[in-house]
Amino acid sequence: MPAKTDHDARRRDVSAAVWRVVAEGGFGALTLRSVAAELGASTGLVTHYFGSKQQLIRHALELAEDRTRASIPEVTDLRTALAAVLPTTPEVTEISRVWVSSWDVALAEPELHALERARYRRWRTRLRPLVIKAQSVGDLPPGDPGDLATGLAAFAHGLVVQALFDPTTYTPKRQLRILDTHLAALRPSD
Amino acid sequence: MPAKTDHDARRRDVSAAVWRVVAEGGFGALTLRSVAAELGASTGLVTHYFGSKQQLIRHALELAEDRTRASIPEVTDLRTALAAVLPTTPEVTEISRVWVSSWDVALAEPELHALERARYRRWRTRLRPLVIKAQSVGDLPPGDPGDLATGLAAFAHGLVVQALFDPTTYTPKRQLRILDTHLAALRPSD
Repeated sequence: MPAKTDHDARRRDVSAAVWRVVAEGGFGALTLRSVAAELGASTGLVTHYFGSKQQLIRHALELAEDRTRASIPEVTDLRTALAAVLPTTPEVTEISRVWVSSWDVALAEPELHALERARYRRWRTRLRPLVIKAQSVGDLPPGDPGDLATGLAAFAHGLVVQALFDPTTYTPKRQLRILDTHLAALRPSD
Repeated sequence: MPAKTDHDARRRDVSAAVWRVVAEGGFGALTLRSVAAELGASTGLVTHYFGSKQQLIRHALELAEDRTRASIPEVTDLRTALAAVLPTTPEVTEISRVWVSSWDVALAEPELHALERARYRRWRTRLRPLVIKAQSVGDLPPGDPGDLATGLAAFAHGLVVQALFDPTTYTPKRQLRILDTHLAALRPSD
């Protein structure tokens, strides 16, 4: 029992170090050596849990997925769903930064590319009923809900990227103002 | 003279290899060794032109900037300006893929972060008069042109990312349809 507990605790420490490395330096900084240095441990310890850089990358993406899930509230309307992905808190800023960084490795490796494509598809699928609901109450124009969901997801992620590179211009308050102005502009007039 | 010409020709070969490496594998794949392998030459030859990985990264970003400039037509309207950044041709797809990949290194290094922030600011500055023109003819709603330019740049780059990860869903034709639907939805009704 104690051995198991030690093992689990150590694994959690290694996992936390993986997250700190990508949150600070992105996927370009993620190596067995950098995780070991972050832990103040030997590379051998890290390879005990993650046998390759590929496994480290996979684990970092799983952590990002878990944290994203935990950070997204129960969403019943479009505005809340889009606002939730904007880097308006330190926590979401860190998660966003890790996702945007991950596109370098995800574009390069077929398996990670397929995972990211699936992740985008799931997100648009979640947005779709919210788009249809907004259309039904006259908050969005008629038209293909899939195209509208794509456009709104695009708007939100494109704003994430600009905010990550220019946080003094895109304060949390201004990000939300831009979102609200955008949604208001899409509302058909009566 | 011949020595100079040889040197220039060799430099162009190395430069072309740098581009092929990032266009294929992103910035995670860009090393002195991978460029040498792409050239079928020794690492020593590459270090003769680029002394460090940092210099290779800088050079790849300059190449992306040059190619971007060459691919963007003289733009006098918003629709053309936004359509020009969408990956609807192999050439723009390659350039977009390199920019999206570059965000990993650019988020990690203060100097590259500042360069990317400046690049975004220049882009929004170029979009701004086109936004004001569109507002003046009733194609865009009234409101802060800076916020509108940010939102449109966000929409375009977010669509770029989704198209790079899902090119079979987002064919060139569908990307342009989504852009046109989006611009039509933003047009205030008479």
